[in-house]
Amino acid sequence: MTVPGPGYAITARVEAPASATAAGDLAVAVGRVGGVMTAFDVVESRTDSIIVDISCNALSEEHTHQITDALDGLDGVRVRNVSDRTFLVHLGGKIEVNAKVGLRTREDLSRAYTPGVARVCQAIAARPEDARSLTIKRNTVAVVTDGSAVLGLGNLGAAASMPVMEGKAALFKRFAGVDAWPVCLDTQDTEEIISIVRALAPVYGGINLEDIAAPRCFEIEERLRDMLDIPVFHDDQHGTAVVVLGALRNALRVVGKDMNDCRIVVCGVGAAGSAIIRLLMPLAPADLIAVDVEGIIHPDRPGLHPSLEWVAERTNRDRRTGDLHAAMPGADVFIGVSAPNLLHEDDVAGMADRAIVFALANPDPEIDPAVAQRHAAVVATGRSDYPNQINNVLAFPGIFRGLLDAHARGISDVMLLAAAAAIADVVAEPNPLFIVPSVFDSTVSPAVAGAVRKVAESDRDGAAVAIGEALAVGEETARATETADE
Amino acid sequence: MTVPGPGYAITARVEAPASATAAGDLAVAVGRVGGVMTAFDVVESRTDSIIVDISCNALSEEHTHQITDALDGLDGVRVRNVSDRTFLVHLGGKIEVNAKVGLRTREDLSRAYTPGVARVCQAIAARPEDARSLTIKRNTVAVVTDGSAVLGLGNLGAAASMPVMEGKAALFKRFAGVDAWPVCLDTQDTEEIISIVRALAPVYGGINLEDIAAPRCFEIEERLRDMLDIPVFHDDQHGTAVVVLGALRNALRVVGKDMNDCRIVVCGVGAAGSAIIRLLMPLAPADLIAVDVEGIIHPDRPGLHPSLEWVAERTNRDRRTGDLHAAMPGADVFIGVSAPNLLHEDDVAGMADRAIVFALANPDPEIDPAVAQRHAAVVATGRSDYPNQINNVLAFPGIFRGLLDAHARGISDVMLLAAAAAIADVVAEPNPLFIVPSVFDSTVSPAVAGAVRKVAESDRDGAAVAIGEALAVGEETARATETADE
Repeated sequence: MTVPGPGYAITARVEAPASATAAGDLAVAVGRVGGVMTAFDVVESRTDSIIVDISCNALSEEHTHQITDALDGLDGVRVRNVSDRTFLVHLGGKIEVNAKVGLRTREDLSRAYTPGVARVCQAIAARPEDARSLTIKRNTVAVVTDGSAVLGLGNLGAAASMPVMEGKAALFKRFAGVDAWPVCLDTQDTEEIISIVRALAPVYGGINLEDIAAPRCFEIEERLRDMLDIPVFHDDQHGTAVVVLGALRNALRVVGKDMNDCRIVVCGVGAAGSAIIRLLMPLAPADLIAVDVEGIIHPDRPGLHPSLEWVAERTNRDRRTGDLHAAMPGADVFIGVSAPNLLHEDDVAGMADRAIVFALANPDPEIDPAVAQRHAAVVATGRSDYPNQINNVLAFPGIFRGLLDAHARGISDVMLLAAAAAIADVVAEPNPLFIVPSVFDSTVSPAVAGAVRKVAESDRDGAAVAIGEALAVGEETARATETADE
Repeated sequence: MTVPGPGYAITARVEAPASATAAGDLAVAVGRVGGVMTAFDVVESRTDSIIVDISCNALSEEHTHQITDALDGLDGVRVRNVSDRTFLVHLGGKIEVNAKVGLRTREDLSRAYTPGVARVCQAIAARPEDARSLTIKRNTVAVVTDGSAVLGLGNLGAAASMPVMEGKAALFKRFAGVDAWPVCLDTQDTEEIISIVRALAPVYGGINLEDIAAPRCFEIEERLRDMLDIPVFHDDQHGTAVVVLGALRNALRVVGKDMNDCRIVVCGVGAAGSAIIRLLMPLAPADLIAVDVEGIIHPDRPGLHPSLEWVAERTNRDRRTGDLHAAMPGADVFIGVSAPNLLHEDDVAGMADRAIVFALANPDPEIDPAVAQRHAAVVATGRSDYPNQINNVLAFPGIFRGLLDAHARGISDVMLLAAAAAIADVVAEPNPLFIVPSVFDSTVSPAVAGAVRKVAESDRDGAAVAIGEALAVGEETARATETADE
């Protein structure tokens, strides 16, 4: 972050002299050290002094101390206490469990609990499929992690991953009415994770894997998909891939190119990178070159990890070798899901005309977007303080809404492509600064849900949807949602 | 159930002639076959006919058919459809997950989710104990089952146990503000259950085991208690034992006897029976005789199961042998947690003067309470249609409320005894028909919570509470809550 943001927001309670200039002095003090004041609330006013709550955004924890020191250094001003608003939001956790049924009377109790509940149990025992309508399985997703790759922070473990998973659950409800529950596992053993999720499955209508390190995440996902009769989705892979594909669809519209004519470079072949490649290949780009820390991936590269063989066999038509910079000349699209500052200005300058650059490494992208924009026609990042934010919140809530509504027993690439098209097509007229909708656009989640549901229902009815049709389904539901919303 | 209850409640939509006698005719038809009409709602009225929703309680599923047949048989009356209100209550499940934080603006998102959340994760990674204040662990309990002993229905499995566990979660919130989540496991392997609960523990501040068959439940509970730093409670054992002890405390007041002078017979030594015995023994009854399907338990009984050795060594002072009937003559208290109709009228008649009979087998007690009452001074059952219902809802919500508030790392018998005393002492003046408070008495859960919390905090401060004091703590918090409520 290069500007103070709400991630570091404090509220300082200060006592200041009751002078005409007090408010101005305080504001100036905050600004002088680079803080951004967001609120000024007088708590108490006396004849000779006032007590004020000063809220401001900072750059870092250290910066918050500089701000309070600046306030405390003013003549006659005393900082009484400082609260960190991010921590305040987390006190006691961010989600809760509520009853949807009344429990006020004896009759309520006897229907929702004993003795009435016994008949419902027996009905499910007789027809297990009824659990999808008579229990929370109807609307509930597990957010499963082992805490091994929490955000960009690394292996923090289960307890420390909780704030992310609770936040995710809150987003599920906020954006798609899905009930989601954190399942943060104090184990990082692949077999144990698989057997635990298998055992927990009766409660859930879907599994969202989250922040599990690669390559463990691939095996966990694949084996759970084979094992369970509910959809298994790894957000770091498929959520990212869906939003990237949606954004790319619009970026190509903006530059007037066709996927089949494009040479694409994907930098980073972890969870997100490999999912992006897998979802892109069926759309037949002219070529795709995958690059990881060891350089361009090709079948003859020594010591190729088994998880990269699929990629090596299907990409890099001209068998290029070398590093990232060797892959870039003439490329139409760069998609980075790797690490900060890997891409140079020269690399972008050497791309094809009307180039597209998605520099998605978080929090610092592969290249400063302002620099990339000197040469590329469309630039996107993962950051919220720059246009075209590639944010998974656009995908996962609507995808699970659609899966749950369809009572889906699995998830397919065709569903993901339909979701990507739906996200893209919510933007009626894309332009270089607007290739993805805002996360607060309330039409996104219903459009995505509708597209996924349509494909899932066709699958179930035996009328499998082809890839080309998936894009049309996405477009159609996005249009329908837009109309309904007007 | 011998009278129609809300456990079998239907609403029939019927079309009837628009005559002056229509309403009466319909009501009479329901009553003639033994149904109890609870509501009559006109949905639509035309010149020649009316459409009415008739709600009524029935005895059984078959009985609901008799009622609709009786309506359908009336002249000019047609039953259009019938909905089962118990099933309607369950549609889509009974609990939901809600966000406690606002997610309306970009600022909200950046505090509750990325990037702000990262700092909270790092704080917990640095000080794991902070998870108890910064995550839902603060207020959340897992309701864990393997579906092996669902209510009295037996081994229905994980999916079919869901309605009970969801109901339990709803009760936790309703009666004590505790967030509880169903963990219904598709495994009945003791080792697997233990390792799963261990792995899930980071999310929870307490574990409530539920409807797990004996003797597996004993090992699971014991090993988890050793392993985890949060309280582990098996409601079928300890919840029942706490309410039984509370009820017995008041029953003894009513009959004017002292525990130390009482000979107690406990019939049934499964989960509930053994927990009752373990909690009773420290209170030093004159004698306690435990009886299971094979008769009175004594150390020389051949083939004694290891889980019964503790009981055999500590009870049955006079080394009695024989069946239940041999145990009863002269007993002051009978506590049955076994099976229907095991106790005969003669057994009760042969008890000591001013006898106490708790016939708790569900749904049909060890003896018809009306019969027991001919000879006993105080009678209690597990049924809601009879006075003195021994209902776990009186115990578990308040117990966990207290444990969570104290950030307790375990649970002790002393806490359970304090909880029992608190339940009892909510009833200011017990009488033969009123030895336990109503489940809807809002002072119960705070009284129980206060008692448990007090003991837990004393334990933590190194000032262990003795058994005698526990009863005083319970009494004190019950009195304090009562006063606060006035």
